[in-house]
Amino acid sequence: MVEGEEEVGSVNLEKFCIDHKEMLAADVILISDTTMIALNTPSVTSGLRGLSYVQVEVTGPNRDLHSGLYGGAVVNPCNVLCDMVASLKDKWGRVTIPGFYDDVKECNPEERAEMAKRPYDKDKFMQSVGVTHLQGEEGYSDLERIGIRPTLDINGIWGGYTGEGAKTILPSKAFAKISMRLVPYQNAERIADLFIKHFISLAPEGVAVKAEYLHGGESYVSPLDTPEYSSASLAVEDVLNKKPIPVRSGGSIPIVSTFEKVLGIKSILLGFGLESDAIHSPNENFPVENFLKGIETIVLYHRNYDQMKQKLTG
Amino acid sequence: MVEGEEEVGSVNLEKFCIDHKEMLAADVILISDTTMIALNTPSVTSGLRGLSYVQVEVTGPNRDLHSGLYGGAVVNPCNVLCDMVASLKDKWGRVTIPGFYDDVKECNPEERAEMAKRPYDKDKFMQSVGVTHLQGEEGYSDLERIGIRPTLDINGIWGGYTGEGAKTILPSKAFAKISMRLVPYQNAERIADLFIKHFISLAPEGVAVKAEYLHGGESYVSPLDTPEYSSASLAVEDVLNKKPIPVRSGGSIPIVSTFEKVLGIKSILLGFGLESDAIHSPNENFPVENFLKGIETIVLYHRNYDQMKQKLTG
Repeated sequence: MVEGEEEVGSVNLEKFCIDHKEMLAADVILISDTTMIALNTPSVTSGLRGLSYVQVEVTGPNRDLHSGLYGGAVVNPCNVLCDMVASLKDKWGRVTIPGFYDDVKECNPEERAEMAKRPYDKDKFMQSVGVTHLQGEEGYSDLERIGIRPTLDINGIWGGYTGEGAKTILPSKAFAKISMRLVPYQNAERIADLFIKHFISLAPEGVAVKAEYLHGGESYVSPLDTPEYSSASLAVEDVLNKKPIPVRSGGSIPIVSTFEKVLGIKSILLGFGLESDAIHSPNENFPVENFLKGIETIVLYHRNYDQMKQKLTG
Repeated sequence: MVEGEEEVGSVNLEKFCIDHKEMLAADVILISDTTMIALNTPSVTSGLRGLSYVQVEVTGPNRDLHSGLYGGAVVNPCNVLCDMVASLKDKWGRVTIPGFYDDVKECNPEERAEMAKRPYDKDKFMQSVGVTHLQGEEGYSDLERIGIRPTLDINGIWGGYTGEGAKTILPSKAFAKISMRLVPYQNAERIADLFIKHFISLAPEGVAVKAEYLHGGESYVSPLDTPEYSSASLAVEDVLNKKPIPVRSGGSIPIVSTFEKVLGIKSILLGFGLESDAIHSPNENFPVENFLKGIETIVLYHRNYDQMKQKLTG
């Protein structure tokens, strides 16, 4: 069992895998860091998006200036950062970084039709996050936008005076954390390179721009016609009395591609979280029933896989 | 002598003036909260810009979300804020808020020619703030951009995760403090109203936008052909051996227009700061020599004004 330090980008895990390849030899890797639709609508995650995470810094004057005495003539790095970030998507919700979509493998109409069968209640989804409208890349459904399409989001932005009340400064610096979710076969480092090159090219005269790749991970797709996936699917069906739906998730688990690349071992994503768990949010939670059903399912998974393997090798 | 609580918007001063109008009766008000070009190039401030300061809040989902599971379909308020702010200026550096320039009184060519005589070393100015390029509204010089033209600057911006390293959230909220420097005869509250109305109209579906007027002040222009201005000009000339240049400053001192409106008294802006004082910045400073020359000048100002007034009143 391995704690994959997933929330901090698994920075030490690749080296650990390389150094202990023989100790880590295995038939398959089971990861439970995913969700299902509901206990009465079970699902198994069959794919994950990748991630490329960048931090940018825009510097204008060498110190915070009085906005009255300098405002109008000296470039404001906060305004510049907004201009630059605003230009990273066009009016159709597409990312404007040259080459960003070059390696994206489009899903064929059959795959998209299969995905569209997944139960989805738009109103309930919107209600769960407290919005009255969804938006994204034109030409794709909500589930496709979070499952099979790459995105670009600001994760954090800051600059200038952020305390109570008014302070009339023209800030020296502005910062943003920007991440891109990736799909097969976009490469995290290549996308970060394209981002950084493009972002620096957007800088107007009068500011200095830095952009740094913080971390990333590749996307992953699990084939459905393998003994590994079948073992998981049957285990869920045995415990929850319904055949699970394979679902492409929008999240990223960088270690999955590390395990495949370094150890040559596929992963099965058999998780028991729910959308209502509020992960990475206040009041994060996990229902006890899902915990107990998860234990039962994983026991059956091991039994199923062992039986199938004996048949195949036997 | 009054401490005008200028740095917090002088929120209590207007009421104090209204309540104590008779006690505050005076011929003229002398304010030393301004700069001069240099001790060997003295100047007297003959005008100030006004200010309208607004805080905005953009809300997307009801909590920070996991950017992988929701990114691409749920509106990101940080990206939206950047889009909205970026659209507040056009490519010529003009503010795009409808009605923003309606009340601006353009300076005539003679006034602009007079201002252009003010000594100005662009390289030195850029060096003092650490930039290699200046930019602003097209069709105006650097000094005009900070003296006689209105502007819009972000004073602060924040939203999402702003700590060390990477956190993959789709933020719930984004904020900005935005101020506009105003010129005669723009009204601070009217400009705030125009801003708020326009900003809210920019909000795309899927976010809620709030905008609040924090504080403001009107611009001010001092006529040069009065005994008050002449007393100041002569006092500077006596102490520094050069006739001072009248200069329109880009800063704002809201109490000047409060004094004029409530008490009916004009102000003279006789200050001794320098551009190198780094006001509102780290290492703010004030040369001792300017302090001592300032004391001498103010003594002479009172003598001059007393003599002129006696002549006028006979």
